Amino acid sequence: MHVALLGGTGDIGEGLALRVGRDTDHDVTIGSRDAEKAQAVADDYTDALGTGNSFDGHANPDAAAKADIAICCVPAYHLTDTIEAVADDLGDAVLVSPAVGMKRDESGMHYNPPGVGSVTELAAKTAPSDTPVAGAFHNLAAGKLAALDADLNWDVPVVATDEAAREPVVSLVADIDGLRPLVAGDLSNAAEIESLTPLLINLAQHNDGMHDLGVHFE
Amino acid sequence: MHVALLGGTGDIGEGLALRVGRDTDHDVTIGSRDAEKAQAVADDYTDALGTGNSFDGHANPDAAAKADIAICCVPAYHLTDTIEAVADDLGDAVLVSPAVGMKRDESGMHYNPPGVGSVTELAAKTAPSDTPVAGAFHNLAAGKLAALDADLNWDVPVVATDEAAREPVVSLVADIDGLRPLVAGDLSNAAEIESLTPLLINLAQHNDGMHDLGVHFE
Repeated sequence: MHVALLGGTGDIGEGLALRVGRDTDHDVTIGSRDAEKAQAVADDYTDALGTGNSFDGHANPDAAAKADIAICCVPAYHLTDTIEAVADDLGDAVLVSPAVGMKRDESGMHYNPPGVGSVTELAAKTAPSDTPVAGAFHNLAAGKLAALDADLNWDVPVVATDEAAREPVVSLVADIDGLRPLVAGDLSNAAEIESLTPLLINLAQHNDGMHDLGVHFE
Repeated sequence: MHVALLGGTGDIGEGLALRVGRDTDHDVTIGSRDAEKAQAVADDYTDALGTGNSFDGHANPDAAAKADIAICCVPAYHLTDTIEAVADDLGDAVLVSPAVGMKRDESGMHYNPPGVGSVTELAAKTAPSDTPVAGAFHNLAAGKLAALDADLNWDVPVVATDEAAREPVVSLVADIDGLRPLVAGDLSNAAEIESLTPLLINLAQHNDGMHDLGVHFE
């Protein structure tokens, strides 16, 4: 498959690019609002991986046009802008939303969903109506994800509009070493997954020796 | 310490009673609205444990009066009634809320918090203003908890009003084999913990071989 990381120049994009590049046979294209930045970062990832696998970089619409799976790696507040910018170029690609809306106060991080219930559902509402949409990768600690010497043992709950959206995303997750895809139903179940991310941050803040936390269900 | 399980005749109460009875030196009193039922169930737990450790049973207010930690083991919709019934008897006991509000539709289970933000915060709002309140045990699968031959490897996030509420609850959790207490801050962080429970149910529904799920952070 061909994976496009829209807004893939940030920290979650880096980790996904390096892990997909190292662990799978899938092609990865880095997208950015700025095509030159996308190519420069793609070159950096190619150097960082050091395996001969290479990434290419393009403006987000051109990256989306190449994709079987387009993962929207931008913060929640850039989600709708980014999806609207690539709407005409997604074709049959599955759009994947990993973003989580949070707010911080003196007690820590809190889940702060948009009015439609979750960021993943906002992605679906913003995307063209015939675009298959999935939610995944919400709970990955970006720093550990990008540290390729770190072994992962994390579960990745996947919600999706339908089987056409779910199957390729589950397959992609399973291809990454140390990630286990778990089916969590349709997009209306996304809020409970997104809620985990502020909890992970709060637990890392309050417990000695815990950082870059992920989740494992057992 | 003396642990009272208010409404402890149900499934989460059974598991907590048996595990605390088997794994710790703490005394356990079963509470119920009906004192005779409480005593009968306490006798059943004593028989089930089969170690010579014995439980006693009392009406909820009398159970609360004996407690250092009173765990409110009733469903969310009985929470306020139960707390109001024991309010004059809690003394210095820490009140612990493990309940989660959920609703089911065709997509699965969804978190359904009360207006104050979480069931744990509703417990605190209902309790006397000087009662130390904690939230814990929200994510325990009752069936596996009560099956004493099942080894657990679950984390228990604990939120609390203050250190006086947190410390004895963290200590109690740590005394139960296979449970690891994790500090999650104050009660305003409870919603993200409670949200995990419907996710656990959805994951068990959608993934072959997964049932009675708990969570482990790593």
